[in-house]
Amino acid sequence: MAHHDFTPTVYHTTLGPHEPVLTVEAGDTVSTSTADARGHDRDNRQVAPRGNPMTGPFFVRGAEPGDTLAVTLERIVPNRAHGITSPRIAPGVLDPGTPIAHTEVSECRWLVDATEGTARMIEPETALSGVPIALAPMIGCLGVAPAGRQAISTATSGPHGGNMDYRGFASGVTVYFPVCEPGGLFFLGDGHAAQGDGEIVGTGIEISMDVTFRLDVIHGESIHWPRAQNDTWLMTVGNARPLDQCVQHATTEMLRWLESEHDLPPIVSHSLLGQCVEYDLGNVFDPAYTMVCRVRKDLIAQVRSAL
Amino acid sequence: MAHHDFTPTVYHTTLGPHEPVLTVEAGDTVSTSTADARGHDRDNRQVAPRGNPMTGPFFVRGAEPGDTLAVTLERIVPNRAHGITSPRIAPGVLDPGTPIAHTEVSECRWLVDATEGTARMIEPETALSGVPIALAPMIGCLGVAPAGRQAISTATSGPHGGNMDYRGFASGVTVYFPVCEPGGLFFLGDGHAAQGDGEIVGTGIEISMDVTFRLDVIHGESIHWPRAQNDTWLMTVGNARPLDQCVQHATTEMLRWLESEHDLPPIVSHSLLGQCVEYDLGNVFDPAYTMVCRVRKDLIAQVRSAL
Amino acid sequence: MAHHDFTPTVYHTTLGPHEPVLTVEAGDTVSTSTADARGHDRDNRQVAPRGNPMTGPFFVRGAEPGDTLAVTLERIVPNRAHGITSPRIAPGVLDPGTPIAHTEVSECRWLVDATEGTARMIEPETALSGVPIALAPMIGCLGVAPAGRQAISTATSGPHGGNMDYRGFASGVTVYFPVCEPGGLFFLGDGHAAQGDGEIVGTGIEISMDVTFRLDVIHGESIHWPRAQNDTWLMTVGNARPLDQCVQHATTEMLRWLESEHDLPPIVSHSLLGQCVEYDLGNVFDPAYTMVCRVRKDLIAQVRSAL
Amino acid sequence: MAHHDFTPTVYHTTLGPHEPVLTVEAGDTVSTSTADARGHDRDNRQVAPRGNPMTGPFFVRGAEPGDTLAVTLERIVPNRAHGITSPRIAPGVLDPGTPIAHTEVSECRWLVDATEGTARMIEPETALSGVPIALAPMIGCLGVAPAGRQAISTATSGPHGGNMDYRGFASGVTVYFPVCEPGGLFFLGDGHAAQGDGEIVGTGIEISMDVTFRLDVIHGESIHWPRAQNDTWLMTVGNARPLDQCVQHATTEMLRWLESEHDLPPIVSHSLLGQCVEYDLGNVFDPAYTMVCRVRKDLIAQVRSAL
Repeated sequence: MAHHDFTPTVYHTTLGPHEPVLTVEAGDTVSTSTADARGHDRDNRQVAPRGNPMTGPFFVRGAEPGDTLAVTLERIVPNRAHGITSPRIAPGVLDPGTPIAHTEVSECRWLVDATEGTARMIEPETALSGVPIALAPMIGCLGVAPAGRQAISTATSGPHGGNMDYRGFASGVTVYFPVCEPGGLFFLGDGHAAQGDGEIVGTGIEISMDVTFRLDVIHGESIHWPRAQNDTWLMTVGNARPLDQCVQHATTEMLRWLESEHDLPPIVSHSLLGQCVEYDLGNVFDPAYTMVCRVRKDLIAQVRSAL
Repeated sequence: MAHHDFTPTVYHTTLGPHEPVLTVEAGDTVSTSTADARGHDRDNRQVAPRGNPMTGPFFVRGAEPGDTLAVTLERIVPNRAHGITSPRIAPGVLDPGTPIAHTEVSECRWLVDATEGTARMIEPETALSGVPIALAPMIGCLGVAPAGRQAISTATSGPHGGNMDYRGFASGVTVYFPVCEPGGLFFLGDGHAAQGDGEIVGTGIEISMDVTFRLDVIHGESIHWPRAQNDTWLMTVGNARPLDQCVQHATTEMLRWLESEHDLPPIVSHSLLGQCVEYDLGNVFDPAYTMVCRVRKDLIAQVRSAL
Repeated sequence: MAHHDFTPTVYHTTLGPHEPVLTVEAGDTVSTSTADARGHDRDNRQVAPRGNPMTGPFFVRGAEPGDTLAVTLERIVPNRAHGITSPRIAPGVLDPGTPIAHTEVSECRWLVDATEGTARMIEPETALSGVPIALAPMIGCLGVAPAGRQAISTATSGPHGGNMDYRGFASGVTVYFPVCEPGGLFFLGDGHAAQGDGEIVGTGIEISMDVTFRLDVIHGESIHWPRAQNDTWLMTVGNARPLDQCVQHATTEMLRWLESEHDLPPIVSHSLLGQCVEYDLGNVFDPAYTMVCRVRKDLIAQVRSAL
Repeated sequence: MAHHDFTPTVYHTTLGPHEPVLTVEAGDTVSTSTADARGHDRDNRQVAPRGNPMTGPFFVRGAEPGDTLAVTLERIVPNRAHGITSPRIAPGVLDPGTPIAHTEVSECRWLVDATEGTARMIEPETALSGVPIALAPMIGCLGVAPAGRQAISTATSGPHGGNMDYRGFASGVTVYFPVCEPGGLFFLGDGHAAQGDGEIVGTGIEISMDVTFRLDVIHGESIHWPRAQNDTWLMTVGNARPLDQCVQHATTEMLRWLESEHDLPPIVSHSLLGQCVEYDLGNVFDPAYTMVCRVRKDLIAQVRSAL
C-alpha cells in the first residue's frame, strides 16, 4: 500500500495504450496534479496541449483484460486561485434556431477561494460577480485505455470512461472501469471547481487540481460500462447519443450489478429501480453525452438482508 | 377566493376542448379526487376508462389564449390503501436485445400506509416486501387543452403538459401552462404514491388521490412550455423525443424566463445556468419523454439584488 | 363503384373525429381539390386557415375500428400556375450553431407549367430561375382520425398518417391506414408540385391540387403503421422522432406484413430485408419525422412462388 | 501515375496513425485485395482478425493535414464464390420488445456467381434459395487516420470515414476524406457482394474482394465530413447518432460544398436542396449511423452556367 507522489511531465489528449508514466501495485495511492482543460497548470503556464490533457497513464501491476479497475478519488483540490468558463450555452443545448447571444466575450474568469469554498465570476464584471457559487471540485475526464487498441480523444467518452463531466466524480467516490489493456492504464484530468449539470456552456469552472487517488483491481470481474459508488449511492454510467441511449446503457448496467453481485432476483431489481431509481445528467455537450443511473445503498442493504 | 368541493362523474383520456365540469374564478381552490391510471377509484371500483383518465376540465373565468394558467398543488393524498405497479422495466429503457425477464407476474400490489408514510410491495411476496419505500405523492398527468383545437391522449405530453410523470409535481409546487382555449381547461389525474425517476417500469405506484389545488391566471404573459416553482426552485419542462430535445426545450424556456421576467442579461443567465443548473428526468417511457431544467431561486434573488 | 365530385367548403387543421363532409361506399372514387398549405385555392383565394388545411373527412360506409382503409391516389394535378417555397433550410436540419443565411427573403415563388411538366423559381430571380425542375406532384398530408378520439394537428404525423411529406405518395400509389373511428374518416391536403427528400426547407413547392382517389376497406385486418404499395414496391411508414425510431416502426411493420400476409418465414423475411431493403426519408422538419421502409414486389413474388 | 500491385500481409482493426504498408505518389493506382469482415481471404483462410480488418494504410506522398484525399474506386470484384450474412435483423432496428425470431441459425451462406452477377442464399435452404439477388459490390469500411492521433475501431465511423456501409461506395465513385496525418493513411476493407440499405442484419453479403483504386490529393482544401461523387451525384456523408445528427452533418457539408467550391449563393443552394435533395441510408447498425445527402450534378451544372 505504497504512496506515490507523481509530478506529470507528459500529457495525452487521447485515452489509449500509451507508455505508462508510473507503475503501481494494487492498493497504492498516488498524489499528483492535473492541468486544466486548456493545458495550464497551477502557475497558469501552458504545460500541455489544449483539449483535456490527461495526467497518466498509470499502470497497475496485475490488472489484466477482463478485470475491473477501481479508482477511489480521495482528494480533489484546486491548486490555483482562478478558473475559466465559456460564456454561452452551446447551440446544441438550445432549440434549433435560437439566436446566439452576446458575442462580445469569449471567456469568463472566476476567482476561486478554496478557504472560503467559493467561486465568483469576476470577468466580465456583472451582477453575477457578487454572488459566490459553492465550490464542488470534480474530475471531468477520467478513464482507461479502451478496448481493441483504440486511442480515443479526451473530448468524448465511451465504455472506457473519458470526458463524462459528471458532478458525482468528486472526492469520496470510487469509480470502476473495465480493464482492456494490461495494467489498466488509468488517466485523469479536466478538473472543474464547480459545474452545472450537463456542462451546457461547454465548460465547468476549468482549473488545475491537486488530486490523490487509490488504485485497486477486482480480478476476474468484468463490467460493460463505468460504475461508481460513494457512501450513499450505487451508480452506473452510460456514454452515447442520444441521451435515451445513455439511459439504456446505464440502466442495463445497473440491472447487471444488482442481479449478479447483489443477488437480487429480477422481480426485485426491476421493482426496486422502478420506484426508487434516480438519474443524473453528466454532459450534454460532447460528441457522446452522459447519463448516470443511481440507487441508494441502504435500500439495497435492506433488501439483501431479507433475501 | 371561493373553495369548491367537486366530485368527478366524467373522465377524459384526452386533453382537449371538452365541456367544462366546473367553472371557477381565478384564485379559487378546488378539492376533488382522481381515479388511478387504470380508472379505479378510492373503493377500487372501475369508474373511468383505463389509460390515465382525467378529472376535469376546470374552466377558469377570464383565462384567455395568450395568458398563463397557474396551478398550485396544495394537497395530494392517496385515498386508499393499495397501489399497483408494473413488474418489468420497459424494453425501450434497456439496451436493445436485452432478454425480457420474469414473465410470470403481470402486476404488483403495494400496501400504502399514509399514516406511516410508506409503501410496501406485498404481491408477489419477495425480499422487497419487508422494505418500506417512503411515500412521495405526485400527479403524473396534468395540463390544459392544447393549441389548435387538438385533443391529445393522456398517454403522452407536449407544450400543454400531459403525462410528464415528474416527481417534482408534488404538494407545494405551482405549475404554469399556456392558455390555448378560453378558460384554460385544466385536467389532472394519474396519481402516484411514489415513483422512481423516468417511470421506467411504465408505472409509479398507481393510486387514486384526494387533491386540492388553486387556479390563478397571469394575464398577457405567454409561455412556450410548462414552468413550475416551489420554495426552492424555478423549473421548466421539455416534453419530446429524444431526451436531447427535452433538454433543448426546457433550457430555452428557462433562458426566456430568466431574461424576460427576471431581467437577467444573457451573459448572466448563461453563466449562472452553466455553473448552477440541474436537470431532472420525468418519464422516459411515454411517446414523448420529459426533462426538467431547474435553478435555485436564492441564487436568482442574489443576482437580481445586484443588478 | 360510384364516382363523386366533391367541392370542399370546410377545412380542418386537425385529423380527428370531425363531421364527415361526404359518405361513400367502399370502392367509390372521389374527385376533389385541396387548398395549399397556407389555405389558398386554385384562384389564390384564402379559403381555409393556414397550416395544412385538409379536405375531408370522407366517411366510408362499413369501415369499422380494426379494419384497414385503402386509399388509391389515382390523379394528383396542380390546379394553378404558381407554387410557394420557403427560402431557408430549417435550423434543425443543419449543425447546431450554423449561422442563418440570407434573411432578406421570406418566401419564393415558382412558376408551375403542367404542360411542360416543370417548375421554375421565378421570385427572387436568381441563377436557379432558368433551371426547370421536373414536376412530381404528391400529397404531403393524408390520413385518418386517430385512435382514442384524439384530434391531432396536421403539422405532425403518427400511426394514423398525417403530415408525412413523402415523395412516394404520388399518383399510382395505394396507401393503407388503420381504421380507428367508424367510417375511417379520411383527410388529405398539403399538395406539393415537387419536393426534395426531407422537406428540409419546411415546404415543398406548395400548391393547390385536383385529386382523384378511390377508397376501399379491408375488413378484419388491422395494421400498426401506414402501409403503401405501387406497381414496384411494398412500403411501410414510421412517424416519430428521432429518425432511428421511424426506422424501428417502419421495419417492424414491414416484417409483420411479410410474415403474416405474405407468409414468409422469419429466416426469409429477415434475410430478404437484410440484403434488399431500401429506406426513403419523408420529412425531417415536423414535430414527428418520417421514414419509409420498402422492398420490391417482384422479389417477394419470386420468394412466394418457391414457398 | 504508377500502378502498384499490393498483396496485404498485415491488417488493422483500427483506423489510426499506423505504419504505412505502401507509399505512393498522388495519381497512382493500387490493385490489392481485402479480407472479409471476419478476416477470411479468397481461399477462406483466416488471414486477419475478425471485426472488419483493413488493408492499408497507404501513404500518399505530399498529402498533409488540411489537404483532402481523393480515392477513386475503379474496380471492386468478389474474389471467391461464397459470402456470409447474419440471419436476424438487429434488435436496435426493430421496435423495443420485439421478440427475437428464429434463433437456430447463426449465419447464412450465399453462393456468389460473378459471371451471372448474382448471389443466392444456399444455407439454410429456404424459399429464398432459388431467388437470385443482383450483385452490387461495395466497400463497407474505408477512410483515413483520424484527427488528434486517435485510433478508432473499424466497427464505427466518424469524420474520417470508417464503417459507413453505404451502397454508393461502389465502382465508379470518388470518395474524399480530410487528411489528418501526413500521407493521409488510407485504409479499406469489409467488402459486400450486395447489401440492403442500413445493413440492418449487421452484415451485407460479406466477402473478400479484389479492388483497384486511385489516390489523389487536393492541396489546401479541407473538408469536415466525407464527400463523394460519381457520374450523376454529388454526395456528402454524416456519421453519428441519432440519424437526425447524420442528416445535420451531411446537409451542412453539402451546403459548404455548394457555396464554396460551386459558388452558389445561399438562396440558390438552399432552394435547390430544398426541392431536389435526396438522402440515402448507410448503416443503422454500428455505434455511429450513416446518412448521405446527395444532389444531381446536372442540376448544379445548369445553375452554375446561369450564374
